[in-house]
Amino acid sequence: MRFNYPDTWVRDFNRLFSFELIRTDRQGARLGRLHFSRGVVETPTFMAVGTQATVKALTPAQIQETGTGIILGNTYHLMLRPGSDRIARMGGLHHFMGWSGPILTDSGGFQVFSLADARKITEEGVAFKSHIDGSSHLLSPERSMDIQRELGSDIVMAFDECAPYPCERRQAKEAMDRTHRWAERSLKHFRGGHQALFGIVQGSVYTDLRAESAQVLTQMPFDGFAVGGLSVGEPKDLMAGMLDACVPYLPTNKARYLMGVGTPVDLVNGVAAGIDMFDCVMPTRNARNGQAFTHHGTVSIKQARYAEDQAPLDEKCPCYTCRTFERAYLHHLYRAGEILSSVLMTLHNLTYYQTLMADMRRAIQADRFELYRNEILAAYAVKSEE
Amino acid sequence: MRFNYPDTWVRDFNRLFSFELIRTDRQGARLGRLHFSRGVVETPTFMAVGTQATVKALTPAQIQETGTGIILGNTYHLMLRPGSDRIARMGGLHHFMGWSGPILTDSGGFQVFSLADARKITEEGVAFKSHIDGSSHLLSPERSMDIQRELGSDIVMAFDECAPYPCERRQAKEAMDRTHRWAERSLKHFRGGHQALFGIVQGSVYTDLRAESAQVLTQMPFDGFAVGGLSVGEPKDLMAGMLDACVPYLPTNKARYLMGVGTPVDLVNGVAAGIDMFDCVMPTRNARNGQAFTHHGTVSIKQARYAEDQAPLDEKCPCYTCRTFERAYLHHLYRAGEILSSVLMTLHNLTYYQTLMADMRRAIQADRFELYRNEILAAYAVKSEE
Repeated sequence: MRFNYPDTWVRDFNRLFSFELIRTDRQGARLGRLHFSRGVVETPTFMAVGTQATVKALTPAQIQETGTGIILGNTYHLMLRPGSDRIARMGGLHHFMGWSGPILTDSGGFQVFSLADARKITEEGVAFKSHIDGSSHLLSPERSMDIQRELGSDIVMAFDECAPYPCERRQAKEAMDRTHRWAERSLKHFRGGHQALFGIVQGSVYTDLRAESAQVLTQMPFDGFAVGGLSVGEPKDLMAGMLDACVPYLPTNKARYLMGVGTPVDLVNGVAAGIDMFDCVMPTRNARNGQAFTHHGTVSIKQARYAEDQAPLDEKCPCYTCRTFERAYLHHLYRAGEILSSVLMTLHNLTYYQTLMADMRRAIQADRFELYRNEILAAYAVKSEE
Repeated sequence: MRFNYPDTWVRDFNRLFSFELIRTDRQGARLGRLHFSRGVVETPTFMAVGTQATVKALTPAQIQETGTGIILGNTYHLMLRPGSDRIARMGGLHHFMGWSGPILTDSGGFQVFSLADARKITEEGVAFKSHIDGSSHLLSPERSMDIQRELGSDIVMAFDECAPYPCERRQAKEAMDRTHRWAERSLKHFRGGHQALFGIVQGSVYTDLRAESAQVLTQMPFDGFAVGGLSVGEPKDLMAGMLDACVPYLPTNKARYLMGVGTPVDLVNGVAAGIDMFDCVMPTRNARNGQAFTHHGTVSIKQARYAEDQAPLDEKCPCYTCRTFERAYLHHLYRAGEILSSVLMTLHNLTYYQTLMADMRRAIQADRFELYRNEILAAYAVKSEE
């Protein structure tokens, strides 16, 4: 299969966005840089999730403090509240939320399947009712591009259909084929400018579909490629196989983004498989539920054993939380239901994630990534709680 | 009535704490300084309330950013969770919560009357059940002094009985007389050291009782005097009369603290009446409910009129919230139920309160306090919402 794209489609592409590959190690782990009009982000990178125009519990100054360079905004949530038209009138998402770094917005595809009510999928798009007020909406490739243009994000995601898990092969192929048609429509409607557009590889848990999806999409002039539809409930051990099936078809000179992933172990494995970008609610959501990620595995701060523990959450962590407070205090804040618990735990978890990414980048640079990956696998295999 | 106090009672008093009166204007507004082993606090001062060992939603660094010099901790809450013995083992309240400035703790008296279940008042003290887990506890003058010593606060409050409103004169007098006996027992049991001890004037809404209470308590060697039992539901216009009835009996060389008060208007009126210290949950609690205090009166950020308002919350305010965000964003955060709403609104409200106190101090210094007070009265008379 081969597509012919008119030159006009790619007119503005890459004008302000580019991916620079600095180094690939023997296993395939990559060190690189994303260049945006708003600055440079080193890869592999982890994008903090800022669903409703806020990385939950943190000020933009605190997000920066964690070492986060690029954040993710959710098209589905923002189109419903406060509305992308309103955000556009307020000067765009960056200005609205006070974040001066780059922002990636998802297409709304994943969330409309997981959160919206009464959704109906047609070739045109997805009709659904808002989970907030029941109002009726349509998301289509064109509408998703328009919304993401109104939001003004730096990386726009093509509108895709994320198949549920489990999913029969026939259904997975249908969703994948529609994703490819929607990818074309996304490209056609996309206007470029300062924005870059990424395509999304689908194919559920079928390696041949994953390979086909990568082959089809990489014939389209996207600025980068994402692997979507993983971490949606399938067994953990399937992920490596899915990445192996599609990553070899992705061009080395474009960024690769594994969507919605994951744990520290998922991240080191993803980087080993050649992924450059990640996002996940785990560090922020788990923080609010009292779970910390540390150099010794996870720590569930609510446990009684921490009630008089005067050690920092993670003695190797440079964050404000670890520099200032003891576990006993964090335990108290969590038990007392204090807002500051969410703030301090989120600050720590995001710092831990960004430290992990920085350590991976240094390890790739020094050609000792595999060694570093094994350290992380050991820390999370042995010591994690719950 | 006259008490004879043995010299030993006052042995350690004032060793590390003192109040310095710098200036009193014609109306009686006072400019001063509280000297602690942990630093100097300029008066009139507003103490941010840190009930459960946290000023809700703010990190200690952010509390400092607001200009807050001294905070208040609640004995009732802390004795129940995490327990004052635990806080003592963790190194005291300052260390536990990462606050290096002075702390005042209340006696637990007010809260045990307003929050606890199944309370029983005897001459010995107040038996009650925890509102958290139903466990049985006793608060007495001696127990309150012990708890506040374990917490390690810089200013300790005598254990008092706060009469409810409305309250018959006979009941008000009984509570006042018991408060005086409990004040003596508090003094006897208090150990001093780095801690100062304040007595509390009671007397409900009866001016003669207020006068009597001030006369009796000021014969006891307290380091400062509080006016308690106001702002408990009585009509607003009674407060001035109550202060006029007791403040003249308070010594000029000791700090005066009006407990649990209040609105910006209450604060300027309190300072006009000769008060040096205040505390209130209003700036922090109202922040979480979406109400901002500004130079133009209150702003209820949830209102639809702010949905696309690109002005800062208060264009005269130097806080991070006002420097960084527009009302439209704060409106969105509140409507979306985001934690950051509480953080940013609290940061602003406390900054507003501390700016108000600083402006009052400058006005007293420049002999134009009455003018400044009228400005505040006008701003809050005309423009406030809700």
